[in-house]
Amino acid sequence: MPQNAQTVRLAVIPGDGIGPEVIAEAVKVLEAVTRDSGLAFAPTHFSLGADRYLATGDVLTDDDLDAIKGHDAILLGAVGGVPGDPRLVGANIERGLLLKLRFSLDHYVNLRPTTLFPGIASPLANPGEVDFVVVREGTEGPYVGNGGAIRQGTPHEIANEVSVNTAYGVERVVRYAFEQAEQRRKRLTLVHKTNVLTFAGGLWKRIVDAVAAEHPEVAVDYLHVDAATIFLVTDPARFDVIVTDNLFGDILTDLAAAISGGIGLAASGNINPSGEFPSMFEPVHGSAPDIAGQQKADPTAAILSVALLLRHLGARELAERVESAVTADLAARTGATRTTAEIGDAIAARVAQ
Amino acid sequence: MPQNAQTVRLAVIPGDGIGPEVIAEAVKVLEAVTRDSGLAFAPTHFSLGADRYLATGDVLTDDDLDAIKGHDAILLGAVGGVPGDPRLVGANIERGLLLKLRFSLDHYVNLRPTTLFPGIASPLANPGEVDFVVVREGTEGPYVGNGGAIRQGTPHEIANEVSVNTAYGVERVVRYAFEQAEQRRKRLTLVHKTNVLTFAGGLWKRIVDAVAAEHPEVAVDYLHVDAATIFLVTDPARFDVIVTDNLFGDILTDLAAAISGGIGLAASGNINPSGEFPSMFEPVHGSAPDIAGQQKADPTAAILSVALLLRHLGARELAERVESAVTADLAARTGATRTTAEIGDAIAARVAQ
Ligand SMILES: CC(C)[C@H](C(=O)O)[C@@H](O)C(=O)O
Ligand SMILES: CC(C)[C@H](C(=O)O)[C@@H](O)C(=O)O
Repeated sequence: MPQNAQTVRLAVIPGDGIGPEVIAEAVKVLEAVTRDSGLAFAPTHFSLGADRYLATGDVLTDDDLDAIKGHDAILLGAVGGVPGDPRLVGANIERGLLLKLRFSLDHYVNLRPTTLFPGIASPLANPGEVDFVVVREGTEGPYVGNGGAIRQGTPHEIANEVSVNTAYGVERVVRYAFEQAEQRRKRLTLVHKTNVLTFAGGLWKRIVDAVAAEHPEVAVDYLHVDAATIFLVTDPARFDVIVTDNLFGDILTDLAAAISGGIGLAASGNINPSGEFPSMFEPVHGSAPDIAGQQKADPTAAILSVALLLRHLGARELAERVESAVTADLAARTGATRTTAEIGDAIAARVAQ
Repeated sequence: MPQNAQTVRLAVIPGDGIGPEVIAEAVKVLEAVTRDSGLAFAPTHFSLGADRYLATGDVLTDDDLDAIKGHDAILLGAVGGVPGDPRLVGANIERGLLLKLRFSLDHYVNLRPTTLFPGIASPLANPGEVDFVVVREGTEGPYVGNGGAIRQGTPHEIANEVSVNTAYGVERVVRYAFEQAEQRRKRLTLVHKTNVLTFAGGLWKRIVDAVAAEHPEVAVDYLHVDAATIFLVTDPARFDVIVTDNLFGDILTDLAAAISGGIGLAASGNINPSGEFPSMFEPVHGSAPDIAGQQKADPTAAILSVALLLRHLGARELAERVESAVTADLAARTGATRTTAEIGDAIAARVAQ
C-alpha cells in the first residue's frame, strides 16, 4: 500500500455463486465506513471464476494478473462452479485462479482469525472464550502443485505429490506469527506432524525454536496436527496464535470456523507483508452455487474480510468500527430470516452511526 | 490367521508409558471372554519402545520383526517416550517402530470405528447418533517416509516430503471400505483434497468411482478434508464409512475420537486382510508418559481393540460380548474415579457373565 495514498486502488473479484451477492454487501459496508474518513477506495471489478471460464475459456490470464498487480489490495468473494459440472472438468478454478493469485502475489501469510462472537451458537457444548488466529503459510507445502503421475488410468498408476518447504518460506511466516503473538496474549502453538513428516517437520520445529529465542515473552508449544483437532473441540480457548503449514492450516481453519459459528462468519487475509504485491481478503466460505442468486447467503464473512483489509491498510479505527458493527448485528439477530442485502444494510447502517 | 487354529499366537507389545497398564487389562478381558470358548491365546510379550531403546539402543531389529511375523496377531499398547527427552532425539520411535510395523506387515487397512456410547458425554452440544468407521489407508501417502532435505540447518534449507499413491494401494483399501459399507448403512464418503492435490486426489476419485459402479446399492459422496472436519462437528451422524488416505485419516480419526468421548475410548485395527502378515490392534491414544504407572489410564480403548482383534479372527460372538461389556460399563459410570485395573476388572467380570 502506498504510504500517502488517499485513494486505495481496490481490485474486486466477486467470483461465482454467492460471491457477487456477498461482495456487494462488503463493498456497501466499505463505502459506509470510509465516507468522510479521508480514506477512499477506487474499485475495479474483475470478472473471474467459473462463469468467466465458461464464457471465454480463460481462468486467469497474464493480462488479468498484471492488471490486478496494479492495485493496492484485492477483495474476493468466492470462486468455483457447480461441483461435478462436466464443462468445468478441464479447468481447476481453485488451482488456476485462487491458488494462482496466492502464489503469484506471494501471499505467504494466510491469516485466519477465529472468534466466537457473543450470541453465536457453537456446535460445542462448552466452547469457552474462543479468540485465536491461525497464521497459515500460503506459498509452500503440499500446495505447491509439484505433483505428477505415471501410467494414469491403469492398474499401475503411481501419483505423487511433493510438499516443498524452505527455510526462507517458513522463517518469514513464523516471524509474522510471533509478531501477532506479541500483540495478542503471547502464546504461540506450532502445529505440524514432526513425528511422521520428519524433514518438513524438523525444519518448522527448528525455525520456531530459533525465532522463539528472540521472543522470550511468548510462550511456545507444539502440537501434532491430529492432537490439535482434539483441542479445537475440547479446549479451543487454549489457543492464541497457531502457526502451521498450508495444508494443516487449510484443515484447521475450517474446523476453527465450524466451532465458532460456521464458515459463514470466517474471514481471511492472504497477505504479502512486504507490500511488494497487493494482499487479498476473502471469506473462507466457497461459492455455494446451490443457494446463489437467492439472497440467502450471509455476507458477514465478506464484511469481516473488509475489516481485515482496513486493518492491513493501517486504518485500525475503521476496521474496529466494522467489527463492532458486525458484533452488534450478530448479537441482535433474532432468528428471523434476512436477505443478504438486509444484513449488509443493517451492518452498513451501524458503521455509519 | 490359520483357519483351524485352536490357539492363536498373539504377539503382545505393551510399549511405553501407560501402554503396559492398559494392555494388562486388555489381556485380562481377552482371557475372561475366551475362557471355555474353544479359542485360546498364547501370548508372547515383546519389549519394544522408548524404554527398550534407552536400554539397548534398538528400536525394532530384524529379529524382532521376524519373531513378530511368526504370530497370528498383535496387540499393542502405546509407544513413545517423554516428549522432548534428549536421549530420544536420535530415535524416532513412531517411524522406527509403529510405522515400521504397519509398513512391514502391509497393514493397508487402518480401521477406526467411532461410536458415541450411551452415557458418554461428547464435547458437541447435539452430537446425534455417532456410529461410523474410518477406513484409513495405512501403507502409502505422505507416510511413506520419502522425504529429504538439503542445506539442513542453513537459511537455504529445502525440506521435501513426497506423498506416494498407487492404484494398487488405493484400490485394495477402497474395496475393503465398500465391503464395510455393504455390511453397514451402505453409505461411503471419500475424503481427500482433490482440488489441490490433483494427482493423488484424481487417483483416489477415479478408483472410488470405478469400485462404486460394482456397488450400486452403496450411496457414495465426496468431501474435501477441510469440509469433512466441519461435518464431523456439525453433523457426525451423516457418516457411515469414510475412506481416506493415511494423513487425512490420521487427522480425522483423532477428531472423530474427540467428538465421541475422547481417545481414551478409541480402538483401531491395523489390518492386513490377505492374512499374509499378522494384523495389529491398538488403542488410538499414545503412551501418555505424564500419567504412566499411576493407574490413571482408561483401558477401554485397549479393551475395544481386543474386540476388533476377536472380530478379525472370526470370533464375532466373543467380540460382541466385549463390546456389550464395555457399553454396559460405560453406561454404569458414575463419575467416581476408578483405577485402570478396576475398570479392567469390571469389564472382565461382565464378559465372564
Ligand atoms: C478452494 C481451496 C483451494 C482453498 C484452499 O484449500 O486453500 C480453500 O479451501 C481455502 O481454505 O481457502
Ligand atoms: C504415532 C503416530 C505415528 C500415529 C500416526 O500418525 O499414524 C498416531 O497418530 C496414530 O494415529 O496411530
